[in-house]
Amino acid sequence: MHIEKHVSLNLNVRGLGTSATLAINERSKQLQREGKTVYRLGLGQSPFPVPVPVVDALKLHAHEKDYLPAKGLPELREAVAGFHQRKDHVDDQPDNVLIGPGSKELMFLLQLAFYGELVVPSPCWVSYVPQAQIIGRRVRIIHTSFEDNWRVTPRQLEQLCDSENDVYRPRILVLNYPSNPDGGSYTSGELQKIAEIARKYDIILLSDEIYGQLHHKGEHISVARFYPEGTIISSGLSKWCGAGGWRLGTFTIPHNLDWLMETMAAMGSETYTSVSAPIQWAAVRAFKGGIRIERYLWHARRILSALGSSCVETLTAAGVRVHPPDGAFYLFPDFSPLKERLAKRGIHDSVGMCNQLLADTGVAILPGVVFERPAEELTARLAYVDFDGARVLSASETIPLDEPLPETFLATHCGRVLEAMDQIADWLDA
Amino acid sequence: MHIEKHVSLNLNVRGLGTSATLAINERSKQLQREGKTVYRLGLGQSPFPVPVPVVDALKLHAHEKDYLPAKGLPELREAVAGFHQRKDHVDDQPDNVLIGPGSKELMFLLQLAFYGELVVPSPCWVSYVPQAQIIGRRVRIIHTSFEDNWRVTPRQLEQLCDSENDVYRPRILVLNYPSNPDGGSYTSGELQKIAEIARKYDIILLSDEIYGQLHHKGEHISVARFYPEGTIISSGLSKWCGAGGWRLGTFTIPHNLDWLMETMAAMGSETYTSVSAPIQWAAVRAFKGGIRIERYLWHARRILSALGSSCVETLTAAGVRVHPPDGAFYLFPDFSPLKERLAKRGIHDSVGMCNQLLADTGVAILPGVVFERPAEELTARLAYVDFDGARVLSASETIPLDEPLPETFLATHCGRVLEAMDQIADWLDA
Repeated sequence: MHIEKHVSLNLNVRGLGTSATLAINERSKQLQREGKTVYRLGLGQSPFPVPVPVVDALKLHAHEKDYLPAKGLPELREAVAGFHQRKDHVDDQPDNVLIGPGSKELMFLLQLAFYGELVVPSPCWVSYVPQAQIIGRRVRIIHTSFEDNWRVTPRQLEQLCDSENDVYRPRILVLNYPSNPDGGSYTSGELQKIAEIARKYDIILLSDEIYGQLHHKGEHISVARFYPEGTIISSGLSKWCGAGGWRLGTFTIPHNLDWLMETMAAMGSETYTSVSAPIQWAAVRAFKGGIRIERYLWHARRILSALGSSCVETLTAAGVRVHPPDGAFYLFPDFSPLKERLAKRGIHDSVGMCNQLLADTGVAILPGVVFERPAEELTARLAYVDFDGARVLSASETIPLDEPLPETFLATHCGRVLEAMDQIADWLDA
Repeated sequence: MHIEKHVSLNLNVRGLGTSATLAINERSKQLQREGKTVYRLGLGQSPFPVPVPVVDALKLHAHEKDYLPAKGLPELREAVAGFHQRKDHVDDQPDNVLIGPGSKELMFLLQLAFYGELVVPSPCWVSYVPQAQIIGRRVRIIHTSFEDNWRVTPRQLEQLCDSENDVYRPRILVLNYPSNPDGGSYTSGELQKIAEIARKYDIILLSDEIYGQLHHKGEHISVARFYPEGTIISSGLSKWCGAGGWRLGTFTIPHNLDWLMETMAAMGSETYTSVSAPIQWAAVRAFKGGIRIERYLWHARRILSALGSSCVETLTAAGVRVHPPDGAFYLFPDFSPLKERLAKRGIHDSVGMCNQLLADTGVAILPGVVFERPAEELTARLAYVDFDGARVLSASETIPLDEPLPETFLATHCGRVLEAMDQIADWLDA
């Protein structure tokens, strides 16, 4: 955006660009319109369709027109509480649940309501920090490392809390697992240790578990089990239910934090009012779950798990270092081992690397810097979602769930993603 | 809400309550659950169903799951531009259109992006001022009078601009017509004079025309015709299309204000992302219009016009002063002529008056103070919408549009509203 000289803009938002993930999506589409082959591994959108019973529920409730309560439709709050009880073995009740137009909006309201510091381990999802910038709030980034699986360590947390003569500064720590951008998760033991430290320093955990149901083995564990009194679980329809464009997110907020819940609901009522009524009614069906939705999830997990492994294999063979994913549909490869080779081609940072890759091969991935990594670090996020989810799901449904996918499956159904990996490998080798 | 002592809340949002209109809705429902007869004239929700072709369009697009562009679905931006060209005779193009999850959210983003002062004539809609409070921005209220039909006068505007040695302070003036809370509108001549002053002082007009299509004679005129370069038209599906609960609002922003458009879209992409995809696809059908939707509007207007007149008649006969409405479904009666009578019953302000009325008669209306009127002024907003819109619409459809509604029509189909007026009259007479 070009801003004219004489405008009256809030300094916090001057020069704010479109979210990086949406921007890559729009740029990829533009290149495609120009006739270029583009491998769209930029935008992190679930490739799978919304499950049929959920689409049917939306049709059934298409006439619903009433303004709903700011906190959400009571039936939906009940279904979401049940979902977390069932899936996460936590004791959430309907009055712990807040419904919003996407968990991103709820995170924004949380930051706007809370007067304290946001602590974010990096690499992290692209919107936490711009939201803080819009509000004018300070963010503390904790840089994690490849060696630590891109996970924040209890020791790092403790150091941060002890570092500034302000041990009890009000803080929210964001945990996101399975993680965007790296697909990694925490072990139960790691979560317990983090919970201990959070309790010791009175830190609120914002546990972004939007990919929880896309843990590839179905073994997601919420940190709320170990720190129920201080954990907000963030979830929604966007990822496990394939309904990113529907815009429905959920928070479960413990009673200790009722002051945040009430303030956020009041702010919601003065801004978005409530979430779209037909969408909320349809979401009841999604969160109630059942065998058809479980089967959909098991198929989705099997496909993503196989595809993630295959990508890791190709990239590793090409000399990139990358962790096999635990969930979601992302990898966060580190091209540093090939640093010298890339430097000879004039590539010295992640933005340059991704731009050159896109120009040379049509493979669109996002540079590490947008995930708050150092600019010179040669990392990037790769979303292995450029396939026709509906078709792949149908194909998977013909193969019993207790069998692995046949060897030819990925090549037949997710060929573009495999091709993109080969393109990256060839490009590195060139 | 009761806030505990030790919480870390942003001072701007401490103690923020639920929006007054939503609160009265929840209180009315509570009283009904307790078995009391409640006349729900509090919440300003359209009583009419969403037109059938629009509901059908939502069903047809229920599977749409992609994240849409932050500014809105291109097809919808085109339809909205066409709508304003057709209805308002303005030259809006698709790239002037911004789609949001309700026009309320867009107004919030506008206030957050703009660094200047909000000028609001009172009585005004309930959320402009709390939004400014959340952001920490200053609001200038201009009190209008019953004698001026609750309309801001060009003279008042000019006085405000000349008053503080800061003629060119960046300002947004909110105009809302047909108006919530009083149902009044501006004449073409009045709008031209306001446009002249806005141009002279470089004021941005936020023209809230969400009730434009509910002008009872279908004669709504947009101020954008007289000040296209500085007017943002705010509209959406909530009122004329009966789809308040769907949450879709629109802004048309002139190119002069591209800096606001781009900043708002960027903020949208970092908060709500985009508006629900199935809802946007359905809205295309609504904004494209056509004969079925026009007929729906003509019936709705005929019903609201007749009912508004009938309410004015009863209230006037009871000694209240109130202007006949030009549009929407509100009246803003002033009970001041009965001040002494009410004082004898211990009623000295609008909150006391509305609480007593609700307790004695079950008629729920909103006190003038929530529309930024002085607390002691005995005004209130009355939304004459407590009837079954689908049934009344069907009944109206059996009567040719060039005939007036028969005398018994309102008593047969909108009995509760008439009864509520009688209750108010009896209560005043008691």
